[in-house]
Amino acid sequence: MIPINLSIDCVILGFDNDQKLKVLLIKKIINKNNDYQYALPGDLLKYDEDLLEGGKRILKSLTSLENIYLKQFHAFGNPKRTKQKKDQSWLRLYRKKPKERVVTIGYIALVNMEEYNPQASSFAFQAEWIDIKDVSNDLAFDHNHILSYGIEYLREQIDHKLISNLLPSKFTLSQLQNLYEILLDEKLDKRNFRKNISKIDVIRKTNEKQEGVRHKPAYLYTYDL
Amino acid sequence: MIPINLSIDCVILGFDNDQKLKVLLIKKIINKNNDYQYALPGDLLKYDEDLLEGGKRILKSLTSLENIYLKQFHAFGNPKRTKQKKDQSWLRLYRKKPKERVVTIGYIALVNMEEYNPQASSFAFQAEWIDIKDVSNDLAFDHNHILSYGIEYLREQIDHKLISNLLPSKFTLSQLQNLYEILLDEKLDKRNFRKNISKIDVIRKTNEKQEGVRHKPAYLYTYDL
Repeated sequence: MIPINLSIDCVILGFDNDQKLKVLLIKKIINKNNDYQYALPGDLLKYDEDLLEGGKRILKSLTSLENIYLKQFHAFGNPKRTKQKKDQSWLRLYRKKPKERVVTIGYIALVNMEEYNPQASSFAFQAEWIDIKDVSNDLAFDHNHILSYGIEYLREQIDHKLISNLLPSKFTLSQLQNLYEILLDEKLDKRNFRKNISKIDVIRKTNEKQEGVRHKPAYLYTYDL
Repeated sequence: MIPINLSIDCVILGFDNDQKLKVLLIKKIINKNNDYQYALPGDLLKYDEDLLEGGKRILKSLTSLENIYLKQFHAFGNPKRTKQKKDQSWLRLYRKKPKERVVTIGYIALVNMEEYNPQASSFAFQAEWIDIKDVSNDLAFDHNHILSYGIEYLREQIDHKLISNLLPSKFTLSQLQNLYEILLDEKLDKRNFRKNISKIDVIRKTNEKQEGVRHKPAYLYTYDL
């Protein structure tokens, strides 16, 4: 058996004031003419490194982000996933054996964009938040597939631990509904939404209300995780 | 970067007439005294093999099972996961480089045990269905951890495509409730259960009823997946 290269790729999703779901991409130079390509932050795992530790190291090395809750969601192993022409030119610049197979393990995170300020480094010369609706379909390797898979994973799971990272520690049900609508990309009925939320053990109503609003202040809720 | 060995391990769960949740384990000889060890069916991935294809090949080679819906659930990459003494003796018998790191990708399946008859082959000298409550805590490598993780994954997801493989094509709500109770390892309230099931789009009531029962025949349901 010939061993296989393993990498970690990170799907980091965030919200900003525009209330748009954005993904953190890096720009990489792919040839000597300084042409570039967008990619998810990702790199090879070290030989003796735990998967999650590797994910944290790689994310930090490319974007400076740290202290983020990363969750493994899927391993991608199509034997041809790095063999396309668009990817081989970059691999020839950076890898000794650009034709070797790479299996990658996807990690996902949701962050409140205002709390994180990515700074490109290593082989990334820029790190940018891009609206998921504006992501081009020619990301590096199979990163368009990994990104779609990650977003679909979120929609199917509605993982409260991931979602809680996108909200302030106390939030109104309108904020929560707004977030769900953007994640699911559909309008939700307010009454049904509130009924469903009331069944979720980990979302707890506090005794506090909004402050500094003109309209009738709403109760604040919190995640008990 | 030094490439890493990749393997696939399969958590195959089944039900039998005893209504117990069982896992398919193989027995492997671990030394020249013919001492053996239980393990999940698993082996190294080939260099040019897709992950799912590899999982199917390995499962078939060790247990003869095929045409099973395997679903990837997690990659396990603790750098020490194959370094314990209990595992090194087997690895020295079967691998050229027993100390090399192996990252494994877990696949899970649920099967109706009556339809499948595992037959051991390759380095497995026996393939056995073991009640998950009777599995010893000294499976090979980190297989106890992988098995627990797989069962927990099932409980959290209640993945209908996986679960539908455990039932006949048409089933009563009592059969379905019984299955959920065993998977979740808790008693469920009949009325709440039926209310929750009625909200699940992919479970459809048919016009047919049970036959050959003494009590009042119940309606049959089916999965629309």
